[in-house]
Amino acid sequence: MMSLPKKVTIKEVGPRDGLQNEKQMIKTEDKIEWINMLSETGLSYIEITSFVNPKWIPQLADAIQVAKSIKRKSDITYAALVPNERGLEGALAANMDEVAVFMSASETHNLKNINKSISDTYPVLKPVIQEGIAAGKSVRGYVSTVFGCPYEGNVSIDSVLAVSDKLFSYGIEELSFGDTIGVANPKQVEVVLTEVLKRFPKERIAMHFHNTRGTALANVLVALNLGITNFDSALGGLGGCPYAPGASGNLATDDLHYMLEGMGIETGLKRKELIHSARFLEEKLGKALPSHTMQTERSKISN
Amino acid sequence: MMSLPKKVTIKEVGPRDGLQNEKQMIKTEDKIEWINMLSETGLSYIEITSFVNPKWIPQLADAIQVAKSIKRKSDITYAALVPNERGLEGALAANMDEVAVFMSASETHNLKNINKSISDTYPVLKPVIQEGIAAGKSVRGYVSTVFGCPYEGNVSIDSVLAVSDKLFSYGIEELSFGDTIGVANPKQVEVVLTEVLKRFPKERIAMHFHNTRGTALANVLVALNLGITNFDSALGGLGGCPYAPGASGNLATDDLHYMLEGMGIETGLKRKELIHSARFLEEKLGKALPSHTMQTERSKISN
Repeated sequence: MMSLPKKVTIKEVGPRDGLQNEKQMIKTEDKIEWINMLSETGLSYIEITSFVNPKWIPQLADAIQVAKSIKRKSDITYAALVPNERGLEGALAANMDEVAVFMSASETHNLKNINKSISDTYPVLKPVIQEGIAAGKSVRGYVSTVFGCPYEGNVSIDSVLAVSDKLFSYGIEELSFGDTIGVANPKQVEVVLTEVLKRFPKERIAMHFHNTRGTALANVLVALNLGITNFDSALGGLGGCPYAPGASGNLATDDLHYMLEGMGIETGLKRKELIHSARFLEEKLGKALPSHTMQTERSKISN
Repeated sequence: MMSLPKKVTIKEVGPRDGLQNEKQMIKTEDKIEWINMLSETGLSYIEITSFVNPKWIPQLADAIQVAKSIKRKSDITYAALVPNERGLEGALAANMDEVAVFMSASETHNLKNINKSISDTYPVLKPVIQEGIAAGKSVRGYVSTVFGCPYEGNVSIDSVLAVSDKLFSYGIEELSFGDTIGVANPKQVEVVLTEVLKRFPKERIAMHFHNTRGTALANVLVALNLGITNFDSALGGLGGCPYAPGASGNLATDDLHYMLEGMGIETGLKRKELIHSARFLEEKLGKALPSHTMQTERSKISN
């Protein structure tokens, strides 16, 4: 029999990991309204933006304005991505509850994405993490390409463990393991997570699956069985995959919610509000969102 | 650790369960060519059509012509759906290797789909099954709405077991349990299958998942862990869902293949040939197929 947790925390990354991969930009005021709607869905964690150079990600150039304008609820953690100390300054100025740093488990992806080798990335992230902690913030870490790299293919578990060791040693609260290009299969998740959980406590690991090959929920199931209770997802499956335009991107919050609630696992999320805020985003983006939930919702309307 | 089979049989239902739910009809000669291509993909089982009244399913009105014109390979089982004795006659005249009957585990769905109560369906199917066997054919059975009914909602395990008992008692070789409207979650699959497998051997049970809510592969994973090795699917996710137009339908053969091969489970299927025959079908249907595999394939081309 499956061994399932009673409760899971869904961390909404749509406003950051979703929007940064959408070609269509949405107005800052709409983004703020959307995040305010997300705050009413029962989510306890929302990653709202990224404090990066707007030259890299023009979709998130309004980071400070968004962070300062949203209505915050005291029981929600509002987080932002920061690539470096300048990003951290922005996030602190905007009074984020949590900041997140990121790097890859694969050398080539790290180089292409951050323009540095893995070993050269550590000295950049270490002060960001430690200054974030000194400022009273919890700091999260994303490890990308844990299950495969678009340039190198296979990524060794040793690389994943090495990067994780370093980041935890700097004081990271939680590491989110990303299947950046959505290639993971359930067996692989079991093998990798089993090794990871020999080394680190399950409470400090989150899984960040993309649904590019349709395996995200099957991968979630394996992680649940291994005791993982933190999962990243993006409402409506927002975001696509930068390496496969047109393909599904982030695991959809609404689809994850469907499966977990059906299995009797508590998430705190409210279905009606989730769908309502996904519809709002569809209007503002001027396109349909790819999640299965939104597909079935649309077919109800057209019936 | 997961307990996984070494080998799985994928039963392709696209030409029947797929095409019958597509509005767009394709020419008989194209259908024949497509099935001939499917025979080159490594599949060992193809359900090619349904011998039903063409008034009900005009898409499959060419059943006899298709069955008589395809090039058959000796190591592939070519099957067809038959609703009644007249259908069986057609299937026997066309020399099908296997025939399949169908009914629902839910009273209302059975009534709407077959126009008979469950108890009135038995006397129709019993002679079909027994005459099929007498003619030297193996007979398969589909049980629909095992995990939920579009009219009644929940379907009791007792109903599923009662229908299964009857069908097996008539000499059915294998029962395929259908999540007709794609609502099943992994926990439910575990609960239902655990009861089913107390009663019937796992070798005689197949699972037929639809991906309407994105849970199909997660459901497959649970079934694999319980020892199930027969799975129905349709190439490219062909078929949609008759109760949710626009939504994903059958679990896609190509996505199932991706997951299983990645997990080291043998299927005998050849990826290149699968994609090639899915592309052919896309051309003839004049539309993109919804599987994740085909989505990522399209994005490779447009890159």
